[in-house]
Amino acid sequence: MKGPNKMRFLHTADWHIGRRLHGFDLTDEQEDAFRQIERIALAHQVDGVIIAGDLYDRGMPAESAVAQLNQMIQKLNLDDHLPIYAVSGNHDSAIRLATGTPWFKSTHFYLHTQLAQAFEPIELADTQLFLLPYFEPFDAQQYFEDDTIQHLDQAFVKVVAKMKTLFDPAKKHVLVAHFFVAGSAVTDSETQLKVGGLAAVPEKLLHDFDYVALGHLHGKDALHADHARYSGSPVKFSLSEANQKKGVFIVDTDPFNLTFVPLTPLRDVKRLTESFATLMDDSFYGTIKRDDFIGITLTDRQPIPNVLARLRAIYPNIISLDRLHGYDSQVFAGGESGAQIRQKNPMDLLSGFYQQIAKDELTTQQRKWAQAALKIARKEGQQS
Amino acid sequence: MKGPNKMRFLHTADWHIGRRLHGFDLTDEQEDAFRQIERIALAHQVDGVIIAGDLYDRGMPAESAVAQLNQMIQKLNLDDHLPIYAVSGNHDSAIRLATGTPWFKSTHFYLHTQLAQAFEPIELADTQLFLLPYFEPFDAQQYFEDDTIQHLDQAFVKVVAKMKTLFDPAKKHVLVAHFFVAGSAVTDSETQLKVGGLAAVPEKLLHDFDYVALGHLHGKDALHADHARYSGSPVKFSLSEANQKKGVFIVDTDPFNLTFVPLTPLRDVKRLTESFATLMDDSFYGTIKRDDFIGITLTDRQPIPNVLARLRAIYPNIISLDRLHGYDSQVFAGGESGAQIRQKNPMDLLSGFYQQIAKDELTTQQRKWAQAALKIARKEGQQS
Repeated sequence: MKGPNKMRFLHTADWHIGRRLHGFDLTDEQEDAFRQIERIALAHQVDGVIIAGDLYDRGMPAESAVAQLNQMIQKLNLDDHLPIYAVSGNHDSAIRLATGTPWFKSTHFYLHTQLAQAFEPIELADTQLFLLPYFEPFDAQQYFEDDTIQHLDQAFVKVVAKMKTLFDPAKKHVLVAHFFVAGSAVTDSETQLKVGGLAAVPEKLLHDFDYVALGHLHGKDALHADHARYSGSPVKFSLSEANQKKGVFIVDTDPFNLTFVPLTPLRDVKRLTESFATLMDDSFYGTIKRDDFIGITLTDRQPIPNVLARLRAIYPNIISLDRLHGYDSQVFAGGESGAQIRQKNPMDLLSGFYQQIAKDELTTQQRKWAQAALKIARKEGQQS
Repeated sequence: MKGPNKMRFLHTADWHIGRRLHGFDLTDEQEDAFRQIERIALAHQVDGVIIAGDLYDRGMPAESAVAQLNQMIQKLNLDDHLPIYAVSGNHDSAIRLATGTPWFKSTHFYLHTQLAQAFEPIELADTQLFLLPYFEPFDAQQYFEDDTIQHLDQAFVKVVAKMKTLFDPAKKHVLVAHFFVAGSAVTDSETQLKVGGLAAVPEKLLHDFDYVALGHLHGKDALHADHARYSGSPVKFSLSEANQKKGVFIVDTDPFNLTFVPLTPLRDVKRLTESFATLMDDSFYGTIKRDDFIGITLTDRQPIPNVLARLRAIYPNIISLDRLHGYDSQVFAGGESGAQIRQKNPMDLLSGFYQQIAKDELTTQQRKWAQAALKIARKEGQQS
């Protein structure tokens, strides 16, 4: 239980509305995760929902993505009367996202998209909430009129110093930000615009805040600072996130308390490392959720005809297929000598090669093209 | 003077923010026209600004266009406290434009983007304002659950019939809409998605309203119905609009009165039909605004070397260049016989031809390419 006048927030980030997973539409997954977040916010009677950047997956989102995010925000803020505290992330277009923001405040929906707005804290009963949107060092140069600011870490020093001049000592201080904090763990699905410490925020700069609600990295365990966390994304966006537990944080300001509330994926992302025979065995696949998004790593070494199509008949949402032992080893592991290979029919050689590389059989059309090409090659060989 | 409780609107449309004119940026023209509209609205103490569709030039406007329109709307509505009554046009993305609309009402900014919203009239002191966004017959099919609606005229009959059921007889009835009304005059710069009467609204369907504030056509004189007008665009968007007078209507509801208030273009669009010698004569160009967007029609018949570059030195914003007497007549009007032409050097023939067609000289690189091609052609001619 939180005390009177004490604040409780739900901290989420990186919704990436409009994102696809290896060509698969994630609309349903994102919608389902949203509904869980909404239920959690209401059940925990939070005083507001923090969304720490990357609301959209891209600066120019598709109409369907715009319609989906608009609906989510309206549901939370207008129907459920939940305050929203949000910032733009590096995937968002700050300019597009700013549309309507002056009106949103009337229903306690705060969406900051410009650096200057970071210094207009939202004043709540016991908390000052600083909403710092994603920015580039150039923006900080302009804002502080200081062209010695070349890197993010330099900019962040000035940003935090300025925020501290605004601190009300009677209140808690919460920062919402969308950056890479030095020392955090990275997965495949986060865009790392720059590599190295200059583009990272030193963790010690976050120590002045009672809590820092971070966005940018997609795993809740990316950073384990005392009072600074990435909430992670509500949905898994790559196979590298397969082992992450997705969810949201419930943050109590006083006494400080952090509770992770997990989300249940509609279709999960997972990796299966098995032999083809096991994967095709109903005593195996009968026990698992076959319509999850699955990355398959085959333990087999030998060629398997038409492997992807056969696996897809069982697992409709395969997002990747590779071999544990690679292909090179396998091509030469068959034990065929050069002499044996040279005796083979060229068409057989080609289809074997295609099978091993493309993990699929030649189509009838491809076979025709190959045969026509071989015919021409043979003719030219006879002429010379 | 309008009476107490009587309404006065400013009617504008077709802002097309983000539009370019033959490659030239119109940001400054649109900004300047906007400031004039704002001044007119304040000077005439209007009760609201009607924007009858095509706020943007395209469904996916550039960030700069988004920033510009957002600023204009905020200026009118939040700074000047002017109500805004707007609909989406065929150039707008209804879905994108809908972002934030539920919040906008709190400051009397009404922006309707869906057909269903046309039947939620804005109730003002003496007026019901129906905001009908641009829609496709398919939308009407869905809304009325009637798949016999195949064409716009059929849809419009049902739309107006439904609106009339909502009429408060004690009030005036004003419709804001973005369509092609049958019999209107069209210029080059309006997108005519369909041709023919089926895609047009019969004018008699507008008779039930005290005023119909139309958008879509860019000239204020496109339609001369008693109580239905296109305001036209605030800025000229093509040479075909050169002779249009741009402005806005001030509409009084009771007693009904319509006043056209012209806008002064920052840089006008105009056509000059003159000889090259006249155009290059400072006693001519010294008397006109040379930095206007100018379409030049030359009355000359003879080739003029480097004509575009020479004209641009005087007129920096040339948006088109053609010849009053065309090129065909000119090519053969020189009096050269076929025999004379055949005696000419092929390179001279080519550069003369290019000069007449492209209105420019061959560049050094083009000349090199042509010479190389002629060399090959000559070789091949010798071989055969």
